[in-house]
Amino acid sequence: MSGFVSLVGAGPGDPDLLTIRAVDRLRAADLVLYDALVDRAALRHAPQARWAYVGKRAGRHSISQETIERVMIRRALRGERVVRLKSGDPVVFGRGGEEALALAAAGIPCEIVPGVSSAVAAAALSGIPVTHRGLASAFVVVSGHAEDAYGPVLRSLAPGAATLVILMGIATRAETSALLLAQGWPRSLPAAVLFSASRPDAFFWRGTLGTLASAPATDAPGVIVIGATVALADRIRNAVPGGLHAVAR
Amino acid sequence: MSGFVSLVGAGPGDPDLLTIRAVDRLRAADLVLYDALVDRAALRHAPQARWAYVGKRAGRHSISQETIERVMIRRALRGERVVRLKSGDPVVFGRGGEEALALAAAGIPCEIVPGVSSAVAAAALSGIPVTHRGLASAFVVVSGHAEDAYGPVLRSLAPGAATLVILMGIATRAETSALLLAQGWPRSLPAAVLFSASRPDAFFWRGTLGTLASAPATDAPGVIVIGATVALADRIRNAVPGGLHAVAR
Repeated sequence: MSGFVSLVGAGPGDPDLLTIRAVDRLRAADLVLYDALVDRAALRHAPQARWAYVGKRAGRHSISQETIERVMIRRALRGERVVRLKSGDPVVFGRGGEEALALAAAGIPCEIVPGVSSAVAAAALSGIPVTHRGLASAFVVVSGHAEDAYGPVLRSLAPGAATLVILMGIATRAETSALLLAQGWPRSLPAAVLFSASRPDAFFWRGTLGTLASAPATDAPGVIVIGATVALADRIRNAVPGGLHAVAR
Repeated sequence: MSGFVSLVGAGPGDPDLLTIRAVDRLRAADLVLYDALVDRAALRHAPQARWAYVGKRAGRHSISQETIERVMIRRALRGERVVRLKSGDPVVFGRGGEEALALAAAGIPCEIVPGVSSAVAAAALSGIPVTHRGLASAFVVVSGHAEDAYGPVLRSLAPGAATLVILMGIATRAETSALLLAQGWPRSLPAAVLFSASRPDAFFWRGTLGTLASAPATDAPGVIVIGATVALADRIRNAVPGGLHAVAR
């Protein structure tokens, strides 16, 4: 009897955005280790499994990455089916690669189950397409959590060459916008921050690169989008019954 | 009685990577307009709907974008529930934004249902994380279909600053790799092409930026990934029972 670990993307939040494969793995799971930002409604797909919260949120005490990996390995060696349920997609700043390497090194069979990434979906659910013919033929996804993460790519990118998506970047929005302005990006370039995308409490801020530093900072997870396609949101949102989200201005 | 259009992402191919919301919209659909690369197994979720293939593949005669939009509008005005089912995610080179604008202009209510994008999933399913702590803290997604699509962003990006994902770039792989080499990207940088990701006939090519031009060109859809994390694939794939895909070298 051999165990197995599935590194599963849960999507941006709404449990309707789980994939069929994710639901299948949850149904078969003995143990589910789930992250911050994973909606607990996903639990309904694994009524027989044990669940453990192993989330990390910025600045809070939490279980170490090493502990999470050790638990997965130990349980799998006992023959259990383990699901590691992660917000968004497991390899978009989700440490899915690190965990797969740890499992491989321990001889534990595993798989990656891709999920809907907030990098694209947060914007789309607010009426902002990350690509659009004639406006944006590329997009860049970067983590805003530290300068050594976002600095090299933001400093190299030609102003407006691609739609820019910054995850985990609310706390550093003043630094990232200042960096882009210093590179010659236009102050008037449309920008948005999508908070709690796909969740009932979703809201979004609309402004420009020049005003991004004044976007609200809340506990809610937020995705920053900068680029010409942000300006399409008003027209696209008109088509959505009841509007998409409340707008914070 | 008012119609409604859902612009739905079908994921990279395997119908198990549809979301629950996509399945829900298919079940309720009167008409499904589906693209090339959408697996027809998805049809099983909409047994009562009419289906119409409206796919475009490079270089082949196909239904015009204007016709697709006209059909969606006409059917919705008759009160039908229309699903526009697109490979991957509707706004990642999927013209979801254009179609949403056309629907908005016609006063048709619509929604975007995000899907799992091949931009991230094709690599992940082959054991390549697009981000990885210490190796890649950003990724860039670009269309390889024309120089004016990929040129501006590829010319501006510092060598190795981010994992580079090129969609629809098989035909132009010699041009894009030459452009990057001319910008100072290292010949030895790992590169991969993921063909038919998530499908039963999936296979992948592994090489370097210097050898990318010699990767096979087939009718299969392919995703190009260039960056240091490509080198993790061998170790991660070791953990996957039976390997992930056959490898073409």
